[in-house]
Amino acid sequence: MLTNLEHLGLAVHDLKAATTLYTTLLGVAPYKQEHVASEAVDTVFFKVGGSKIELLAGTSADSAITKYLLKKPEGIHHVAFEVDDIWAEMARLRAEGFVLLSEEPKRGADNKLVCFVHPKSAAGVLVELCQTIVVE
Amino acid sequence: MLTNLEHLGLAVHDLKAATTLYTTLLGVAPYKQEHVASEAVDTVFFKVGGSKIELLAGTSADSAITKYLLKKPEGIHHVAFEVDDIWAEMARLRAEGFVLLSEEPKRGADNKLVCFVHPKSAAGVLVELCQTIVVE
Repeated sequence: MLTNLEHLGLAVHDLKAATTLYTTLLGVAPYKQEHVASEAVDTVFFKVGGSKIELLAGTSADSAITKYLLKKPEGIHHVAFEVDDIWAEMARLRAEGFVLLSEEPKRGADNKLVCFVHPKSAAGVLVELCQTIVVE
Repeated sequence: MLTNLEHLGLAVHDLKAATTLYTTLLGVAPYKQEHVASEAVDTVFFKVGGSKIELLAGTSADSAITKYLLKKPEGIHHVAFEVDDIWAEMARLRAEGFVLLSEEPKRGADNKLVCFVHPKSAAGVLVELCQTIVVE
């Protein structure tokens, strides 16, 4: 079960300009910036209630965000749902016929394990499952 | 200030098929179906944590959703943020240079007053402000 709309990821060309824009639009300053080397993206996070807005800009030509913005306009790139047990959810969805983009969860931004569901499986929406990594 | 990511609106061709798909994906049944005559849409709502997923299908050729799906694939149509005072937020955003799609709030689905911000004002995202109508 997907327990929360954890964040909405927006692909942008100019991270600085989009950060200024969303600070004004949301009426709140970002609480975090993070470079995710494995994905070649710079990210900026805003909190809105129990969810987050994540701005994403590619930092190399190989970045999935850079490639996405070659084909599509700026806008919503993915929607991420929190899960309690990402392995169990991946197994459940795979059994239901959903196509997952990785065999195992990957390390994502914001201290998360993540896995993506193919948009063709979800009526055109790139869905991310994410689970917070708890260090005990 | 935008206080919560209230819902994500998804434009779909086949509401019944999408309802089945999202019931499986989210792991929860929809809690409401509603026809919004003024917008010529049928809607289905799911609760996920403190947010909602709204599936939208047009019911006439004039519907904004029908027109949208003539030009674009199925997927995320808009993101709606809850506000406490929609008139105050509309005035604030207008003063900041954001382009709003109506002069006054309109009656939307799910017992809300709503106003949309032009995607050109928000890095390609169609943003909805919404305020719950409280009957006292």
